[in-house]
Amino acid sequence: MDNPFLVEVTRGRLVESRHRGSVAVVDAEGGTVLTLGDVERRVFPRSAVKAFQALPLVESGIADKFGLTDEEVALACASHSGEPQHVATAASILAKAGQDAGCLECGTHWPLGEAASRALAARGEQPSQLHNNCSGKHAGFICLSCGMGDDPKGYVTAQHHVQRTVRSALEDLTGASHTEDVSGIDGCSIPTYAIPLPALAFGFAKFGAGVGISPGCKSAAERIRRAVAQNPFMVAGTGRFDTKIMEVLRQRAFVKSGAEGVHCAALPELGYGIAVKADDGTGRASEIIMANLIMRLLKLSDEEHAVIAPLAQPALKNWNGIEVGQLRAAPDLLP
Amino acid sequence: MDNPFLVEVTRGRLVESRHRGSVAVVDAEGGTVLTLGDVERRVFPRSAVKAFQALPLVESGIADKFGLTDEEVALACASHSGEPQHVATAASILAKAGQDAGCLECGTHWPLGEAASRALAARGEQPSQLHNNCSGKHAGFICLSCGMGDDPKGYVTAQHHVQRTVRSALEDLTGASHTEDVSGIDGCSIPTYAIPLPALAFGFAKFGAGVGISPGCKSAAERIRRAVAQNPFMVAGTGRFDTKIMEVLRQRAFVKSGAEGVHCAALPELGYGIAVKADDGTGRASEIIMANLIMRLLKLSDEEHAVIAPLAQPALKNWNGIEVGQLRAAPDLLP
Repeated sequence: MDNPFLVEVTRGRLVESRHRGSVAVVDAEGGTVLTLGDVERRVFPRSAVKAFQALPLVESGIADKFGLTDEEVALACASHSGEPQHVATAASILAKAGQDAGCLECGTHWPLGEAASRALAARGEQPSQLHNNCSGKHAGFICLSCGMGDDPKGYVTAQHHVQRTVRSALEDLTGASHTEDVSGIDGCSIPTYAIPLPALAFGFAKFGAGVGISPGCKSAAERIRRAVAQNPFMVAGTGRFDTKIMEVLRQRAFVKSGAEGVHCAALPELGYGIAVKADDGTGRASEIIMANLIMRLLKLSDEEHAVIAPLAQPALKNWNGIEVGQLRAAPDLLP
Repeated sequence: MDNPFLVEVTRGRLVESRHRGSVAVVDAEGGTVLTLGDVERRVFPRSAVKAFQALPLVESGIADKFGLTDEEVALACASHSGEPQHVATAASILAKAGQDAGCLECGTHWPLGEAASRALAARGEQPSQLHNNCSGKHAGFICLSCGMGDDPKGYVTAQHHVQRTVRSALEDLTGASHTEDVSGIDGCSIPTYAIPLPALAFGFAKFGAGVGISPGCKSAAERIRRAVAQNPFMVAGTGRFDTKIMEVLRQRAFVKSGAEGVHCAALPELGYGIAVKADDGTGRASEIIMANLIMRLLKLSDEEHAVIAPLAQPALKNWNGIEVGQLRAAPDLLP
């Protein structure tokens, strides 16, 4: 089936570009609240499930054993911008496990945050693996490995105890099989498993509502949601969508982007989970979709509305600051 | 009508993301060679028509009057990466018209080229309007204005003599009306006019073949194509698609990207013009489409094939250099 247009990009009086996508909103019993487009097709969740991947670290008691702070737990769920606070926190997680950046297997890239990237260059420095947007998650994996008494070396491979443990947590939460035939290698070299959007949304519903999961998993999910709500800067960074949303909504929403146009959320007060995929893999589309869904599903205060409405329909400004168009929900997203 | 899938992005054994788009290939008499998708819909050509916008500068004799070099003429057609050679050449164009960067009205942004951007930051510098990817085109506009005896101030507005002259050249070449109701403001503040893809492709066919245009326009088009073929670095920059294509194809293809997933080309030996629009506005999609069309339409030497084939089906590598997937033509693009 053809996925519907969900986002329009305008210029002048015309629509210049359009994004199609699919959406699943599911409650914590697995009931369908809303679907748009083809939700059978398997989607790689990519970084959207980092919080699920951090569950074993917390549920096992290893995060507490190493004395991880809320900032550090939040960073373990992050696709961060590589700002100095992110880098220092990743190093701190590793140090608590008696390790250092040399153990990371995520690869090196310049900070996602352009200003952070230029600032690093201005200091005459080069990026390390700590600047990789996934370094917090990887530091968490290394903690988990050390805490389980394993050698972390090779922790990114599907056969390693860490990835087997994480995969099991993902299967428990989503109810979807995570098998080799639907796997791919993620940007940071760990396995990623494609699952249907309703399964992904179901996982987020359970993660947010604490329903349908073990008491230990529920407690770990609560710790992670609280840690992120208190440190929304840690999961993304300056000016980033997820940070802005959670700075204002706090525990009302847990929101996480993934590469290639994936965006997920838990809305605990409703017991809903949301999973979004922009067909074309663009983050600008999945952000607009997510912001519009949040506005449609949650009753927002004036303060919350003032932050989220501009994210749902941002103005496009050119290099002289002139408003030349906008990004907005297409009719099929807001019927 | 629904535009077809033209590009697939794979990960592991699955298609992770997909891009739809439309294509028109037209000959210099306006005959249809190939169309894919909805080609009636008007598309903003954006920077894809910079070479057309430079025609009045050359055809009027003003480029020669000011002694513009081939490098400078090429930069007037550029969406450059803001590398030092681009910046110096933009300044040189302005100096030949007795002007300086203070006359530019394109706005300031950090260099498009990430390495150039970090290098600028590492030198402790801030970008100026000369770093704007359109600074060469704007410097050309200022030359044109000065050469016509006008005050260049306000040269970005639709009413200014420069933009009226440029609009007339665009209408002559494409045969499409450029009216206010289909206009928008471009990233660099000049007007951009949405036209159907076949009209855009027709313009490129005439520009490449020198057919259906005045002798003066033909001569100016030849000068511009030669200048760009000899200086493909000037129209884009290090590692960029258009630069790579023209470094190997030289005058066999004139290729130019525009923002929001537009890509155009002239193939003079065939008399063809090509216009591509990725629905979602992503350059990664329009580049794959263009590279595949060039491979399909031109008979390539081994050397040319070696450069262009990897652009038509690039490997996706992760931060550890592991090949995790690829970008490739979808079946509808290569039936």
